[in-house]
Amino acid sequence: MADLNSPLEIGVTTGPIRGSRKIHVESPRFPGLTVAMREIALEPGSGEPPLRVYDTSGPYTDPKVAIDIRAGLPRLRHDWIVGRGDVESYAAREVKPEDNGLKGPDRSGGVPAFPNVNPAPLRAKAGANVTQMHYARQGVITPEMEYVAIRENLGRKQLKEALARDGQDWGASIPDYVTAEFVRDEVARGRAIIPSNINHPESEPMAIGRNFLVKINANIGNSAVASDVANEVDKMVWSIRWGADTVMDLSTGRNIHDTREWILRNSPVPIGTVPIYQALEKVGGIAEDLTWDIFRDTLIEQAEQGVDYFTIHAGVRLPYIPLTAKRVTGIVSRGGSIMAKWCLAHHRESFLYEHFDEITEIMKAYDIAYSLGDGLRPGSVADANDEAQFAELYTLGELTKRAWAQDVQVMIEGPGHVPMHKVKENMDKQLVACGEAPFYTLGPLVTDIAPGYDHITSGIGAAMIGWFGTAMLCYVTPKEHLGLPDRDDVKVGVVTYKLAAHAADLAKGHPAAKLRDDALSRARFEFRWRDQFNLSLDPETAEQYHDQTLPAEGAKTAHFCSMCGPKFCSMKITQEVREFASKQNQAADTFLAAEEAEAGMLAMSEKYREAGSELYLPAAE
Amino acid sequence: MADLNSPLEIGVTTGPIRGSRKIHVESPRFPGLTVAMREIALEPGSGEPPLRVYDTSGPYTDPKVAIDIRAGLPRLRHDWIVGRGDVESYAAREVKPEDNGLKGPDRSGGVPAFPNVNPAPLRAKAGANVTQMHYARQGVITPEMEYVAIRENLGRKQLKEALARDGQDWGASIPDYVTAEFVRDEVARGRAIIPSNINHPESEPMAIGRNFLVKINANIGNSAVASDVANEVDKMVWSIRWGADTVMDLSTGRNIHDTREWILRNSPVPIGTVPIYQALEKVGGIAEDLTWDIFRDTLIEQAEQGVDYFTIHAGVRLPYIPLTAKRVTGIVSRGGSIMAKWCLAHHRESFLYEHFDEITEIMKAYDIAYSLGDGLRPGSVADANDEAQFAELYTLGELTKRAWAQDVQVMIEGPGHVPMHKVKENMDKQLVACGEAPFYTLGPLVTDIAPGYDHITSGIGAAMIGWFGTAMLCYVTPKEHLGLPDRDDVKVGVVTYKLAAHAADLAKGHPAAKLRDDALSRARFEFRWRDQFNLSLDPETAEQYHDQTLPAEGAKTAHFCSMCGPKFCSMKITQEVREFASKQNQAADTFLAAEEAEAGMLAMSEKYREAGSELYLPAAE
Repeated sequence: MADLNSPLEIGVTTGPIRGSRKIHVESPRFPGLTVAMREIALEPGSGEPPLRVYDTSGPYTDPKVAIDIRAGLPRLRHDWIVGRGDVESYAAREVKPEDNGLKGPDRSGGVPAFPNVNPAPLRAKAGANVTQMHYARQGVITPEMEYVAIRENLGRKQLKEALARDGQDWGASIPDYVTAEFVRDEVARGRAIIPSNINHPESEPMAIGRNFLVKINANIGNSAVASDVANEVDKMVWSIRWGADTVMDLSTGRNIHDTREWILRNSPVPIGTVPIYQALEKVGGIAEDLTWDIFRDTLIEQAEQGVDYFTIHAGVRLPYIPLTAKRVTGIVSRGGSIMAKWCLAHHRESFLYEHFDEITEIMKAYDIAYSLGDGLRPGSVADANDEAQFAELYTLGELTKRAWAQDVQVMIEGPGHVPMHKVKENMDKQLVACGEAPFYTLGPLVTDIAPGYDHITSGIGAAMIGWFGTAMLCYVTPKEHLGLPDRDDVKVGVVTYKLAAHAADLAKGHPAAKLRDDALSRARFEFRWRDQFNLSLDPETAEQYHDQTLPAEGAKTAHFCSMCGPKFCSMKITQEVREFASKQNQAADTFLAAEEAEAGMLAMSEKYREAGSELYLPAAE
Repeated sequence: MADLNSPLEIGVTTGPIRGSRKIHVESPRFPGLTVAMREIALEPGSGEPPLRVYDTSGPYTDPKVAIDIRAGLPRLRHDWIVGRGDVESYAAREVKPEDNGLKGPDRSGGVPAFPNVNPAPLRAKAGANVTQMHYARQGVITPEMEYVAIRENLGRKQLKEALARDGQDWGASIPDYVTAEFVRDEVARGRAIIPSNINHPESEPMAIGRNFLVKINANIGNSAVASDVANEVDKMVWSIRWGADTVMDLSTGRNIHDTREWILRNSPVPIGTVPIYQALEKVGGIAEDLTWDIFRDTLIEQAEQGVDYFTIHAGVRLPYIPLTAKRVTGIVSRGGSIMAKWCLAHHRESFLYEHFDEITEIMKAYDIAYSLGDGLRPGSVADANDEAQFAELYTLGELTKRAWAQDVQVMIEGPGHVPMHKVKENMDKQLVACGEAPFYTLGPLVTDIAPGYDHITSGIGAAMIGWFGTAMLCYVTPKEHLGLPDRDDVKVGVVTYKLAAHAADLAKGHPAAKLRDDALSRARFEFRWRDQFNLSLDPETAEQYHDQTLPAEGAKTAHFCSMCGPKFCSMKITQEVREFASKQNQAADTFLAAEEAEAGMLAMSEKYREAGSELYLPAAE
């Protein structure tokens, strides 16, 4: 394992993304509150303004911030949280060997404890409710809401003058301009969540909701067969660099507690977990030995560390389990199968279901959001949209209302494996069953036959369901079903899901979503190669692919590409067409005008020939 | 350049795809006619029958066939063609230096001529019409139609007993079982084409039509800046190995004629070209110097070689050109911009449009299918579904009917760059405007911001439009917009489009499409790793990814995977759930039954505990 005394050795990537710089936009409402964004500078000669893009990368891409992963990130939200006067600090639950899967205090072979653990976590004062949903319902606009509003507004000012809305939003309520009041209202109604555990002050507030930009989640986590803490911190930093909006730590096996601490203290994005995984480790992997007390203790343990949302599989109820018997792939959710096993062994209703309101009490005290798990999601297209899946969904809807009764934030997890013609039914049923609580889907994969390419089979389903209304898409890497993702797999998974989420924003007609496409297309059309690279989701890969065919530095400014070569270029012709037609502008407006324009064109054609129309362009050497 | 006297050196990949063998299914109608298919054998112990899959790889995956690319492939269709008695052979047009972009007879620096050129090509006898559409309209079922019928019927026999139809076909007319008569009727109506130039007898007949399996095309071709004939033949063989149904040779620059000959003589799939590319080379790249005579001569040249379909940009009419002036990316089609340039320079209507019926006369004499080019397709999401694009589409509809008047087969090319919410409109307008002639789309790309990942941005649009009714999807590789695809790019592009086409077949409810998904999912569920690899679209990659985490040979038979590890496995639990619940089968049928089943489960739970339910599984060493 890497030496954690040397940040370099664990290879956390820092520094700006190429062509971009970190900027901070000030809040008019909260003095001193600034929102981090990324600004892509375009070629000076181009006359193009810099383009601002949503930035999940945190301080790691800000040269002004010194990164020390042993100290953790600056605690952005700390003053906001304590400033509300409704929290108290207390002595943290003592870390037990079994929290790390150890039999005794001997840590050898484990990972080092995070050096800068906060001994006094925060929780709500007795009788207080510290959830963003509670504040929202009280009419309070928090700094978190303001941060989200500024963050989501990328380019929308511009839009008002420049762009018309264009999209099919399937009944969403996407505003032209996002105000803090709009954010408050969406959170109050449960249509959006701002995952923000009061013990994770390092996180930059973000919203997950159908009326905001579509978000993506990246999964990391060691498992019984591979990985270590160094890799996991690195993977977290790496995944947010490329655009992950939240990260789930799905660690199993040993060192779960310490690994999670390292990740949380260094994460500027919300962190989610599946507490039942750690609880299972505590009982040696025997599902039927799980108890409410062990599970409850695990919730407190993770709540104090600052986990922002918990996946809770409370919808896997005893009577639904036989509904999976005739499936091709039965129960494929790890958490779902753990609970199914427990229910069968005891022939009892799930303790998660029976203790749901107590779980909610705990979530409320730290403002942890529910991610109600779909333990019965289909694991193959054959099992999509079946009775077991929807039986669970209806129960998740019932639980949503019970959580909302305590002002606790909720999102709903969704499939899975679903052929294209059954994708929309998932979205439609979820909206109705769960009162528009945000949907958080895994893919879905639209076919089972392409292991090794499941980032793509799932990216297709993800783009579609994101368009239909899913608020956050859980990424899938090329290793899905086959192995554990490495660094490259994480990047490919994140970029694939960013493009799927963006395609969904475009199709929903999200204001300003199109600005980046148009800027990149103009760069392409005008042969501003560097701008084209810098505007893309993955500048390194774009440039590398270009250089494989045309390595010459000159080719980056050449007015041609490798598809047609220097000899012929369709873009060049179009520019001539444009200059030509611009002389009778109105001609572009209607067929009729176009026909009339022929007269004008006839007159022009002679001049045109005189002007000469050499197609040969100078080849770059 | 590679030494073409050594087939090895040009690296044509031969041998069966792993886990598969070539089989031949006999026609009951035409004695001696056998249809090649691929059969995937599954583990003997599994009780699973071998699975037959559609096979585009030709003789290259048949160990019984000796491959010699200097001789070319066996001429499968020769006897069928001459047997109809309506063709004559004649002295081929003499190959001129300019056909290869050479100034004189000196070939140095060029590629060697194919050693086995047929000096006497075939054409229709005077007054005869040799198109499959003509035969179909005469009520004649050709061996080509029979071949297609058998080929498309994969697993449908099985289906009749086993599977119910499940899908949304958007008004297609997909039969339970494909008969030769159905094929004939679809071709007669123009709803499907069988590209089959009488001078390309090496090709295995295939159909492109909305009511058949969705097909994919791979583009190859050298260009002014890279590649050579050896690579192109290799890329063709490589692309069909992974599933390309047709291949387009988009070569430009020098050696176009000879490169095409090498490809055609060795291709078991239909080959398409864009003749205007070669014509432009013949006039030194000066679009306005193009003439009808030069273009006509090029059509004859390629017709005699055996090109199966021609992209003809006859819809780029003079009055439409100004409609592109206000676009973000103007005209991005190479053929479209050539014609726009010509029209502007002469201020004349396109010679392709004016001579369309003469072009059709030539196509008819060799049974070459039209691929009516979308020269005005959008090159960015900003330009999608605009006036220029649809103006051209309506003209393509008009030209379709003119081609059909001579019984010449037609398909229609489509975009391009289209955001998701505008994809279906493309399909709907095309069906109406072009009388259900097959649609052949490039992607479409659903966002512009991911260069380096455009196989994915386009794969999303391709899966969707394939579901809506597109008959063939033109692949896009990761190098799109950036560079020329290498061998790996071609494979990634083909596999991505195969999974998109298959996802479309699933969603349309194509009978038997689901059989492969279900077989793979059962293999996954039962931990038959090798079966899972062999059933996937890319077995090598699937196994390689698996082995990166669990290299041990034993892991391929272990009842666990690297996601959960040996300690815990959800699949294992489900198998227990299944055994358990199977004891009250009917419980899986309804909620009510499930509730009732609780009684039974109560009784069972004790036994269950006695039986023991250890979750630990032996780890494979």
